[in-house]
Amino acid sequence: MEDKFAKALRQTADLMNTALSSHLPQSESLERQLHDAMRYAVLSGGKRLRAFLVIQCADLFDVSRDYSVRVAAALEILHTYSLIHDDLPCMDDDDLRRGLPTVHKKFDETIAVLTGDALQALAFEILADPATHPSGTIRASLVHKLATAAGSHGMVGGQTMDIYADAEDISLATITRLQQLKTGALIQYACEAGAILGHAAPAQITAIRAYAHDLGLAFQITDDILDAEGESEEMGKRVRKDADAGKATFVSLMGLEKAKIHAEMLSNQAIGHLSIFKDNADLLREAAVFTVKRKK
Amino acid sequence: MEDKFAKALRQTADLMNTALSSHLPQSESLERQLHDAMRYAVLSGGKRLRAFLVIQCADLFDVSRDYSVRVAAALEILHTYSLIHDDLPCMDDDDLRRGLPTVHKKFDETIAVLTGDALQALAFEILADPATHPSGTIRASLVHKLATAAGSHGMVGGQTMDIYADAEDISLATITRLQQLKTGALIQYACEAGAILGHAAPAQITAIRAYAHDLGLAFQITDDILDAEGESEEMGKRVRKDADAGKATFVSLMGLEKAKIHAEMLSNQAIGHLSIFKDNADLLREAAVFTVKRKK
Repeated sequence: MEDKFAKALRQTADLMNTALSSHLPQSESLERQLHDAMRYAVLSGGKRLRAFLVIQCADLFDVSRDYSVRVAAALEILHTYSLIHDDLPCMDDDDLRRGLPTVHKKFDETIAVLTGDALQALAFEILADPATHPSGTIRASLVHKLATAAGSHGMVGGQTMDIYADAEDISLATITRLQQLKTGALIQYACEAGAILGHAAPAQITAIRAYAHDLGLAFQITDDILDAEGESEEMGKRVRKDADAGKATFVSLMGLEKAKIHAEMLSNQAIGHLSIFKDNADLLREAAVFTVKRKK
Repeated sequence: MEDKFAKALRQTADLMNTALSSHLPQSESLERQLHDAMRYAVLSGGKRLRAFLVIQCADLFDVSRDYSVRVAAALEILHTYSLIHDDLPCMDDDDLRRGLPTVHKKFDETIAVLTGDALQALAFEILADPATHPSGTIRASLVHKLATAAGSHGMVGGQTMDIYADAEDISLATITRLQQLKTGALIQYACEAGAILGHAAPAQITAIRAYAHDLGLAFQITDDILDAEGESEEMGKRVRKDADAGKATFVSLMGLEKAKIHAEMLSNQAIGHLSIFKDNADLLREAAVFTVKRKK
């Protein structure tokens, strides 16, 4: 039987597919290939965990879904751009994503670069649009935080470390920082965006940040565990690529068992930070459990 | 002797190099290659014409340079990202830009993709920062307009048309639309950003938009003329690449002489739109003259 969390996550994914589709361009003109690729990449599924976090954190403060779903859409769109560029031949060179051919395989490399570029711009366009929140200050703050999380001191910085760092030089401290930038920054943003939309009090923001930090790390360690243990068919993407490439991961540095214990511990710690929200945060607690229990 | 306009443009370029440098990251950590490439690309010169237009249009409304220089920096940074990605092997495959090796030649393709991605994020980060303007509504509006101008219905859309349009199918109307998206949208933004910062009246915005529209087209036609006539050494980039690639350009469609007359006419028309600003717009008038008289 589907539990409450699984149902909520599935409902979010359905909601997001409709919302995302409304934001994506569609045309019969010469840019058609670009628009087709944008739709292909964004609408090809995915857990929508980042969208779920935005919406659930915003729900803590009774933010209108009209606003939180738009922010969630912007974040999923930005996340999709990063996947498209990460999959490029000059990056991780992946053929499969979410069980489907990657954008440069389905279309070509040129379209993959342009699609990523256009999706990044679209994410900021959505956030800055007056429909996202009546307050210009809040819209600007949402843009500023996402740009910081996505840029050279965030996601792109982490991706650079990931590609250029020599496996032998990587300590547990380094990989923690790398992953905090590469995937943690956007997960942190997902949670904080809800707090920004909801004019959260400082103690609430601190709690949400701490939750997001531990959740992000637990998420990444679990990704490394799944990459080491998973089957390509089930995962919908190539597995064991980090090990094959001789890359340092949490699993290579800690060993499988310790990595599992560490992820579990972080998940519990994340849940602990939510106590000030009482019962209202139950789905966020379940998200922390899901993060380390998921099979893909 | 250096004329008033040339001096003003040079002063803007000097001012911008200082401003841009302050916005760019620098580190000794594992992301160093990314940060080095960002600095290399953004600080490698260029006319800074877009920055000049932002600052001059903002000056019409006595906007503090503290604000307009930041917007100008964001725009030059976004423009630089587009050049880096346009030069990639899977796009125009260029080795030379502003007289120097392109980013993928100087560093590598991976860094070139990541550098462009990080610069796009940085442009929006600068615009949304409270230091750019005290009003959140104005900051959000600056972000929204730039994102629209840069995205799938603007610059990236134009670049897609440029790469995928069959030369035989391109009419003068099509190439005008293509260039309006590919280069016109950012030039239009440069001028409109000044008007947004300055709370311009509707009639003033209309005048600035009309000026920017004609200027942008004159700029692109002149680019095509220079590409057909210029020497690589003088231009600091590969020339006659459009003709070599069998691409439609204003020159291939209109012929060299007609293209020159058309550019001149548009430049005069652009100047005509500025009459409501009286003497205050003299440097913008000279910019329109420069746009069609420049040698690179």
